[in-house]
Amino acid sequence: MKDLYLLGSTGSIGSQTLDIVRANKDKFNIKAMSMGRDLKKSLSLIEEFKPELVCFRERCDVSLSYSPKIVYGDEGLLEVASYKTKNQGLVVNALVGHAGLKPTIEAIKAGNDVALANKETLVMAGFIVMPLARKMGVHIFPIDSEHSAIWQCIRGEKHEDIKSLIITASGGSFRDKSREELLNVTLEDALNHPNWSMGKKITIDSATMMNKGFEVIEAHYLFDIAPENIKTILHRQSVVHSLVEFNDLSVKAVLASPDMRMPILYALSYPDHLNYAGKPLVLEDVFKLTFEPLSHERYKCLEYAYMAIKKGGLYPCVLNAANEAAVMLFISGKIKFLDIERIIYSEISKNYDKDNITIDDIINCDKEIQERITKEWGNR
Amino acid sequence: MKDLYLLGSTGSIGSQTLDIVRANKDKFNIKAMSMGRDLKKSLSLIEEFKPELVCFRERCDVSLSYSPKIVYGDEGLLEVASYKTKNQGLVVNALVGHAGLKPTIEAIKAGNDVALANKETLVMAGFIVMPLARKMGVHIFPIDSEHSAIWQCIRGEKHEDIKSLIITASGGSFRDKSREELLNVTLEDALNHPNWSMGKKITIDSATMMNKGFEVIEAHYLFDIAPENIKTILHRQSVVHSLVEFNDLSVKAVLASPDMRMPILYALSYPDHLNYAGKPLVLEDVFKLTFEPLSHERYKCLEYAYMAIKKGGLYPCVLNAANEAAVMLFISGKIKFLDIERIIYSEISKNYDKDNITIDDIINCDKEIQERITKEWGNR
Repeated sequence: MKDLYLLGSTGSIGSQTLDIVRANKDKFNIKAMSMGRDLKKSLSLIEEFKPELVCFRERCDVSLSYSPKIVYGDEGLLEVASYKTKNQGLVVNALVGHAGLKPTIEAIKAGNDVALANKETLVMAGFIVMPLARKMGVHIFPIDSEHSAIWQCIRGEKHEDIKSLIITASGGSFRDKSREELLNVTLEDALNHPNWSMGKKITIDSATMMNKGFEVIEAHYLFDIAPENIKTILHRQSVVHSLVEFNDLSVKAVLASPDMRMPILYALSYPDHLNYAGKPLVLEDVFKLTFEPLSHERYKCLEYAYMAIKKGGLYPCVLNAANEAAVMLFISGKIKFLDIERIIYSEISKNYDKDNITIDDIINCDKEIQERITKEWGNR
Repeated sequence: MKDLYLLGSTGSIGSQTLDIVRANKDKFNIKAMSMGRDLKKSLSLIEEFKPELVCFRERCDVSLSYSPKIVYGDEGLLEVASYKTKNQGLVVNALVGHAGLKPTIEAIKAGNDVALANKETLVMAGFIVMPLARKMGVHIFPIDSEHSAIWQCIRGEKHEDIKSLIITASGGSFRDKSREELLNVTLEDALNHPNWSMGKKITIDSATMMNKGFEVIEAHYLFDIAPENIKTILHRQSVVHSLVEFNDLSVKAVLASPDMRMPILYALSYPDHLNYAGKPLVLEDVFKLTFEPLSHERYKCLEYAYMAIKKGGLYPCVLNAANEAAVMLFISGKIKFLDIERIIYSEISKNYDKDNITIDDIINCDKEIQERITKEWGNR
């Protein structure tokens, strides 16, 4: 029995995590949960899973059939992250945005392994998080189809035998549009992703290919591979979730039907492969898998991600902050699609060199950039 | 430094093994070699690698610059297989045909790990060889792109987590011909394999798909997976060398340019992935990978292989013997292409049930069937 402390229970990854738990009640127990804005849904989940610890976003009056410990807000998230029960415990960090960073740190400090879906943790602070995890002997298990695939490919392998990582990209909503055509694409166009149904922010990140850039940064920190040995490739079918090339030129890949529950299940059950009643991959039905170059000219955000990770330090945080602010401006109709990359480039071209960076430096940098960009462009 | 005892030095796999050794002189040492018919080539190789032990096919007078121990014939092969030196040793069994069986047994009995390219060892006697290897604590490392791929896919994985094996097939020379068109195909047509350059026998086995049937049988014994959980699939590009499906429906695959030196290198250097100066796999250049069903109606030999492995005992040996005799008859122009499968079916439909089968039973069964079929059809 594994005890789970779930951050972000009501979001997309959180909900799918709970599906996995429902299907494996003899394997997993939800002992702590953090809830989102939807109070009705939250109460229903709390009654269903009866965790010992519940974190609400804000102080609220709730009437429950039992008496869990109740905590609130950002401080409450840290309590969930550092919770301890007598069984083997695992924090599932399915929080969205920079709010996920501090809970990851707290979980590691408490000695809890972390199944990590929160991208910002590694993009903003991978260079602090991973060494801390190693120091504490804590494992970070990726919840993301690409990183899960890489993690599976290197299972049982030695780090020094890895030659390169190859991250696949579906290409997003605009994969067949020219740069010219991108000038006047609308929000509605951008939200029409060919393969995956996801939140707005990540669907836009997929259209700009910034999402793939973030994944390169995460892979760099997670697997300790130099950015120049991490490649990206356009793979329209989203069946090959990523690949690893070894020194003998042998390439290992993980294939599966596009279903986020599979990487969640693997992160929860590692080192086991628990039975899963999903859709098996039938290659004869898929029939064709294609691979095309991903142009860094065509997808400038991808190029900017490599620039940021090569500069290191605060730059990946700057990249993320500028992107988040810009995407929100695009979603609210304040800027055009190609303005996103312009805003990002302008920001990472500034000087953010700094030594001895702390988590607070990162959080302050993120906040400052987002507020400034939102103000500057939101009022035009 | 690993010491190699190479059986079949002058054949295709043997020659490629020596290429690997030439490129890794600091890693591998050839300490024993068995030579083929080409005496001039043999002498040149002996002078190049200076093994301590040499086995010639027949007694012969040779003049060498040094004095290795010299042995001959089938008995000599057993000496090579059971050779011991002070470093870690590995037998590379690159013999062709049933001659490879007894040396594998002898190597295992001597406690030598075996890198196995000889198909007959497992097809004819897998049910004796694998339990013996387990009993002796000896490893069998497959040299074959398909089994090497499966072996890499299950590296670090638990046996009980494996749901199925998926063996890919290029489809051979006649993959686009109807059953009707197969009636009058010639030897020349059959030898025209689209992807791999191999010997005549195996190229015909590839055209009949019997080769894939043998691989199913070998995989069954090597990886201890039930035949009903071993699937085959038509994959024209020979880039995905095989796949493994796990209980959570995740599928792992190994991809590489078609180059037999890679599985040889891996078998020699496992658990390392040594650097290899071959052709890297560039997926953008390959562009398209396709997967199609392999019909057991279309490829009857494949169906017969499943029949033989499900019956077990002597039947896989019967399948192999009937196939070998039939293919030789086809190569010598005595029978038509579709006669091959007819001869095989007629033979495996007979009663070969037997208990307590020994290696000698297998060898006698093989000999009796081959002689009888050759006589019966060769004189028509």
